[in-house]
Amino acid sequence: MTLSAPSPTAAVLIIGDEILSGRTADTNLNTIARFLAALGIDLKEARTVGDVPAQIVSALNALRATHDYVFTTGGIGPTHDDITADCVAEAFGVPLLEHPEAVAILERRYADGDFNAARRRMTRVPQGGTLIANPVSDAPGFQVENVFVMAGVPKIMTAMLEDVAPRLRTGAVVHSRALRVVGVGEGAVAATLTAAARADRDLSFGSYPFGVGSDGEIGTNLVVRGRDAVSLDGAVARLKAALAAEGIETRDA
Amino acid sequence: MTLSAPSPTAAVLIIGDEILSGRTADTNLNTIARFLAALGIDLKEARTVGDVPAQIVSALNALRATHDYVFTTGGIGPTHDDITADCVAEAFGVPLLEHPEAVAILERRYADGDFNAARRRMTRVPQGGTLIANPVSDAPGFQVENVFVMAGVPKIMTAMLEDVAPRLRTGAVVHSRALRVVGVGEGAVAATLTAAARADRDLSFGSYPFGVGSDGEIGTNLVVRGRDAVSLDGAVARLKAALAAEGIETRDA
Repeated sequence: MTLSAPSPTAAVLIIGDEILSGRTADTNLNTIARFLAALGIDLKEARTVGDVPAQIVSALNALRATHDYVFTTGGIGPTHDDITADCVAEAFGVPLLEHPEAVAILERRYADGDFNAARRRMTRVPQGGTLIANPVSDAPGFQVENVFVMAGVPKIMTAMLEDVAPRLRTGAVVHSRALRVVGVGEGAVAATLTAAARADRDLSFGSYPFGVGSDGEIGTNLVVRGRDAVSLDGAVARLKAALAAEGIETRDA
Repeated sequence: MTLSAPSPTAAVLIIGDEILSGRTADTNLNTIARFLAALGIDLKEARTVGDVPAQIVSALNALRATHDYVFTTGGIGPTHDDITADCVAEAFGVPLLEHPEAVAILERRYADGDFNAARRRMTRVPQGGTLIANPVSDAPGFQVENVFVMAGVPKIMTAMLEDVAPRLRTGAVVHSRALRVVGVGEGAVAATLTAAARADRDLSFGSYPFGVGSDGEIGTNLVVRGRDAVSLDGAVARLKAALAAEGIETRDA
């Protein structure tokens, strides 16, 4: 995609055997993608790794070196398979220490006997890290430099984004317009779409077919994206007219 | 996760701006993860990249060098943003050629005037590649060495897996048992779970909390996985007994 304005970039690192085994279908990537889109931050890539320290450390170091921000999900609970904090500390080469604020938060949450060694694990933060508030179940996430470490449970992860948002440099939002083409496959509109993409190189043009197969209507959603709403609307109007000239009707989608 | 038997490994590469922009929530990763689990193939990692040639080529080369199999989804349609075939050819350093069988398939599908240049793009396969059948909308995927290139539309991707399965070396299936703990958080079971994990290092033990927050019941699903069903059942029985000894009830989940 070619876009004119510079913008912060980001990557997502999803951590957990349960995603790769197929037991759990990840939804956090889409939540983070929509969150970043609204802030004008370009999500450039995502990786999913298992509960394997070497893999987590290596992916984290690759991503934090090449993007303005990295968002991780998963592996910060109290059980032995929650190894994300250890791996982030290793990636940054700093010790993992009990964070006094995190200890205070969990001391308030749990009765004396219930604040056991396992739950105390959740207060460990790589040296220099700051907490990310968890309004759902208290145990915090944390930020180390450009890396934001969040829970894997979608409800908690989503709540943590509230505390992350004010810390991010935002960019110009990418606007999006969709035209729905019904009754013909995307092969029928491809040439016109290509010509439109060549004419407006600051915008991105995508085609996403639906309803393929014997049942249901066929067609495609043409999606045009760009940071300048005025040039975007002009390009969409020209695309609509060019398709109409070939007898292909579109609806705004 | 520590597992005793060797097994083929795999990676998934999801290609498409629409995933990273948040417009589309990917479901293909979970479909492929469950497909591979049933075949005893270990899915080790997944990456999601945009419609950016350098990024696709580099991710593909990294993944195909380190895993027995790579499965890609997205970017093989007729429009200008469908660049996966070009990128796979570049990654392998081979020319991209019209595949005679693919031409024959699409000549049968489209009336003469409708088999246009855009649709002809879908017959291009990196030299040496073999086709992957598409029973939904005909335009094939393809295999080059250990890389399987499939459509992004979930219905088509899922159908293509049928033709991929017989080409894969399978492994011993990883069995899974889940115990549902209700009424206490995972911090209450963490020590017992850790002890169980230390006692059976050939099995993997995970804890996946649910229902956190003020509404609904709290609890966690303890998932034990391993290739030997007998040792798995023994370990699950011991874990259940150890939790019961602490007054923590579990249900089979």
